[in-house]
Amino acid sequence: MVDDQDETFTTKRPTCKNLEKILYQPFQILDHGFIRVVDYMGDDNAIVQAARVSYGKGTKQVSQDKGLINYLLRHKHTTPFEMCEIKFHVKLPIFIARQWIRHRTANVNEYSARYSLLSREFYIPKKEHLSSQSASNKQCRSEEGLSDREAERVLEILQEDATRCYQNYLNLMNQTEEGQIINPDNSGIARELARMNLTLNQYTQWYWKIDLHNLLHFVKLRSHPHAQFEIQEYAKCILDIIKLWVPFTYEAFIEHVRDSVTLSKTGISVVKRMLAGDKVTQEESGMSKREWGELMEALEINEG
Amino acid sequence: MVDDQDETFTTKRPTCKNLEKILYQPFQILDHGFIRVVDYMGDDNAIVQAARVSYGKGTKQVSQDKGLINYLLRHKHTTPFEMCEIKFHVKLPIFIARQWIRHRTANVNEYSARYSLLSREFYIPKKEHLSSQSASNKQCRSEEGLSDREAERVLEILQEDATRCYQNYLNLMNQTEEGQIINPDNSGIARELARMNLTLNQYTQWYWKIDLHNLLHFVKLRSHPHAQFEIQEYAKCILDIIKLWVPFTYEAFIEHVRDSVTLSKTGISVVKRMLAGDKVTQEESGMSKREWGELMEALEINEG
Amino acid sequence: MVDDQDETFTTKRPTCKNLEKILYQPFQILDHGFIRVVDYMGDDNAIVQAARVSYGKGTKQVSQDKGLINYLLRHKHTTPFEMCEIKFHVKLPIFIARQWIRHRTANVNEYSARYSLLSREFYIPKKEHLSSQSASNKQCRSEEGLSDREAERVLEILQEDATRCYQNYLNLMNQTEEGQIINPDNSGIARELARMNLTLNQYTQWYWKIDLHNLLHFVKLRSHPHAQFEIQEYAKCILDIIKLWVPFTYEAFIEHVRDSVTLSKTGISVVKRMLAGDKVTQEESGMSKREWGELMEALEINEG
Amino acid sequence: MVDDQDETFTTKRPTCKNLEKILYQPFQILDHGFIRVVDYMGDDNAIVQAARVSYGKGTKQVSQDKGLINYLLRHKHTTPFEMCEIKFHVKLPIFIARQWIRHRTANVNEYSARYSLLSREFYIPKKEHLSSQSASNKQCRSEEGLSDREAERVLEILQEDATRCYQNYLNLMNQTEEGQIINPDNSGIARELARMNLTLNQYTQWYWKIDLHNLLHFVKLRSHPHAQFEIQEYAKCILDIIKLWVPFTYEAFIEHVRDSVTLSKTGISVVKRMLAGDKVTQEESGMSKREWGELMEALEINEG
Repeated sequence: MVDDQDETFTTKRPTCKNLEKILYQPFQILDHGFIRVVDYMGDDNAIVQAARVSYGKGTKQVSQDKGLINYLLRHKHTTPFEMCEIKFHVKLPIFIARQWIRHRTANVNEYSARYSLLSREFYIPKKEHLSSQSASNKQCRSEEGLSDREAERVLEILQEDATRCYQNYLNLMNQTEEGQIINPDNSGIARELARMNLTLNQYTQWYWKIDLHNLLHFVKLRSHPHAQFEIQEYAKCILDIIKLWVPFTYEAFIEHVRDSVTLSKTGISVVKRMLAGDKVTQEESGMSKREWGELMEALEINEG
Repeated sequence: MVDDQDETFTTKRPTCKNLEKILYQPFQILDHGFIRVVDYMGDDNAIVQAARVSYGKGTKQVSQDKGLINYLLRHKHTTPFEMCEIKFHVKLPIFIARQWIRHRTANVNEYSARYSLLSREFYIPKKEHLSSQSASNKQCRSEEGLSDREAERVLEILQEDATRCYQNYLNLMNQTEEGQIINPDNSGIARELARMNLTLNQYTQWYWKIDLHNLLHFVKLRSHPHAQFEIQEYAKCILDIIKLWVPFTYEAFIEHVRDSVTLSKTGISVVKRMLAGDKVTQEESGMSKREWGELMEALEINEG
Repeated sequence: MVDDQDETFTTKRPTCKNLEKILYQPFQILDHGFIRVVDYMGDDNAIVQAARVSYGKGTKQVSQDKGLINYLLRHKHTTPFEMCEIKFHVKLPIFIARQWIRHRTANVNEYSARYSLLSREFYIPKKEHLSSQSASNKQCRSEEGLSDREAERVLEILQEDATRCYQNYLNLMNQTEEGQIINPDNSGIARELARMNLTLNQYTQWYWKIDLHNLLHFVKLRSHPHAQFEIQEYAKCILDIIKLWVPFTYEAFIEHVRDSVTLSKTGISVVKRMLAGDKVTQEESGMSKREWGELMEALEINEG
Repeated sequence: MVDDQDETFTTKRPTCKNLEKILYQPFQILDHGFIRVVDYMGDDNAIVQAARVSYGKGTKQVSQDKGLINYLLRHKHTTPFEMCEIKFHVKLPIFIARQWIRHRTANVNEYSARYSLLSREFYIPKKEHLSSQSASNKQCRSEEGLSDREAERVLEILQEDATRCYQNYLNLMNQTEEGQIINPDNSGIARELARMNLTLNQYTQWYWKIDLHNLLHFVKLRSHPHAQFEIQEYAKCILDIIKLWVPFTYEAFIEHVRDSVTLSKTGISVVKRMLAGDKVTQEESGMSKREWGELMEALEINEG
């Protein structure tokens, strides 16, 4: 499926040299997954150009492109970022695809297991990425790994179950991976039925096309430390691609979105009091213990 | 999770008596699935009311509600149908959820297997719904069933693999379905990891909220004979609910959408020539064999 | 067009008493505009219910509804807020409608001037809302009003031009507001053409339906002091309605969204240094003068 | 604002020669409007490629690209068409912009009259496009033109009112079109206020980016004979551009969408009876007079 593209063309369209260099080239993610850029539209300049349509003659002031992009992202003027578009070809485990697809403002064409056989490929984590349920966060895994013995047993189970289920997927259809009939006396069941026997770490693939504004939102949520490790790997690779594609936007995104901190109404009032020299405690702050803890963490204040 | 709701309230909102009767009540779909309506907004009258805002004083002519709704759907004036909204609670196998979620203009809250344990419930088809790959349609199952012996073997495999995978899902987390630790020396892996060992016929559930226009589109696609049987079952149940909720819209939908036929430019010219008494053949029609076959089928002309 | 609704019904749906009290009742905005709620779905509890589907058995901890809603909004878990829906009937000047419609995730049925005559109603600002272009902000008006004499002249022009254009709108169609033919020898031009002669302060009206998540976003942007005064008036009225409808969400919105402050990566590092007792200046902060000014303003630090 | 782009670049992206030829080049629409393509992504081949991801190994059969595109559009498999994207720069009268913006699945950056002065340009129809209200269709203009004398009077009014309103727009801001202060004793009102005095035929402009699937939908609705003439002019120009860009899609669109006919359930049964030699009349058809008339028109049967 990987269409190598060596041909080059002449275009008058905005062209991004650094992105051209990696066009079509797959970046490996996890054990069998990948991301590759298969097309794109626009660059940092297209954002500036769209903003300038809005501002018309009124923009002499913010005349430098980098400053303008910074300004747009700082003030959440997001529509100019919708003027850039990118298309990826992604291979990913189904349980990750199910998280990914929740981002609705995007276009998707997924490999259909009603039409075609899925390949014998499933995600088996590396030993170092296995860990127990987090005690503090209901949705996350903890930092602590498993004992070697337990980790090996886990990988064995994952490997065995996925392998058996895949083999039975073929058996149910009465055909080999190459499409040979196994037992001439059987008819096999249809692909759309047999696929239900596969495990959720089975790989699938899709074309995914999205505008830059929505892509930044995806990256923000999915590269967050609380996102599942596996989708973080994809999100981080996408962030690297964004850096090549639209470097000014990348910088502004890190500064004003990814690494920014939002303080609540009460949070900002606490900070003001602290700056004025007040001693503020959780009890009289009006914040819950949890919120207070989050604020102290953001301010890197160690109350130990 | 099924919140029985016996309380009643007084409201000035448009209220649909027939829908109130089945509110919160689950309709069983497949072996462990269900659909139930948990809230709704508007009725046939709300569509008429929205259309009348658009038409203002100009609508005296199409003054009867039923006629107006018919007119709107016939001419694809779809925005008034967006003025009605409905919320479902649905339990469904994951491989069906993956088809369903492709309808993007809807709101979804799905049970999260990062937060909570999934129940030991997976879809096992009835024997009569097992069938082989269709020879003529690359994406469908055929009409023909399997031999009894083969069908039994198929069900056995599906049952065994799902059961084993579910048991190992628990083992991987080192806990029982009730949350008891299995082996005190193990830590188990996090829920977000363990779930990858489940099979695609595992049941999940979600709240799904959508406007009537987009719901009709869903029903049109997913109740189509070429849709997968399992999602058809849900779509047909939804269509029954639509009939209770907005009976005029239901009728117009059957007449102008579900059972309508679209003829291509060439198709309509063929029909005109036939009506004028011409003998038309595929060869000189300008249509491909496949298109011609589809046209003859639509016109119920047997060329045998 | 204002359909008084005195009838009441019995429903098992979640019902919000405080919203029922004002259902259908128009709130006046500007000189001839209004907003009224014509239908709604869900309440604070529906948000909690949707969140609990996601969290399943995993939510015992955040068991209090108010705390959960607070948590959801603080951490931008926005999908449960999409489970509530509201429908408004709004009358507003066309130049404001053009700003409003940029919020795309909503359903709209607007009065059509192709079908029907528009009424002789246009927005004329109050004298105290007239002011000159802001010197500091390219998109805003300033705080300073006009001289009485100039203000009167402005209102005179607005009144005269709108009146003449409206009268000529009728003349172009060769009919009076009541639909009488003016000159039997003329045919008049079609409504779809004549409307182009109207001024942008002409009132229009529409039904507008939106989910709570997107509504909060609308209110955040359009009640902002930098938004145009006229749309602020509508946004503030909607915020009052939200307070009646979903009081927990309202409170969380004020605390974590409307009155929150986002500090950039550099901004938060400056705050940390200040809290540690450092003297930080704009020059060595790495921030532009403009960003520095915005930060000092957020922290209410007067740098003399 | 028209950025002439003479530079060319080397790219590995799919490139459409025929579209490159007209890139950035404005096509005049109406008296002062235009459309020009400023960027694009993909071509016919990108649609095929996306479809092939879905069909995987299962597509050998429909191997020819043109046939596949035809098949996709015939069976309303629309997602592959979302894989192409195009960006236009459009200048258009405000009353047309208001129709246009109702297509929500698109990205827009409009010239902001809060930031900048609008130019002295408004749409004045050609005499031959002036006509009276249609007697049969509540939303359309008729075929019949106006008397020369009336037409001249109409154009005079439109010209006068737009000119006066524009001049007063400047007067209200107390500045000339070039930004010179008119009366040093006045402060003028802000741009965001003054614009309300403009007429709806005032020109605005925007960048508009949309995927091919949604663009085809736009063209279908807006090039329809019942659409307003002025927006038809834009839609037809866009259709010409589509023909250059994706010629296979263009052909399939004409055949299966624009010039197709949808027959209702009853309509198709009438056709079947007619083909079987029955005489069918409106009375016993079960169709309303209006629907029957529409059917006879589609079949070009003259019942006179």
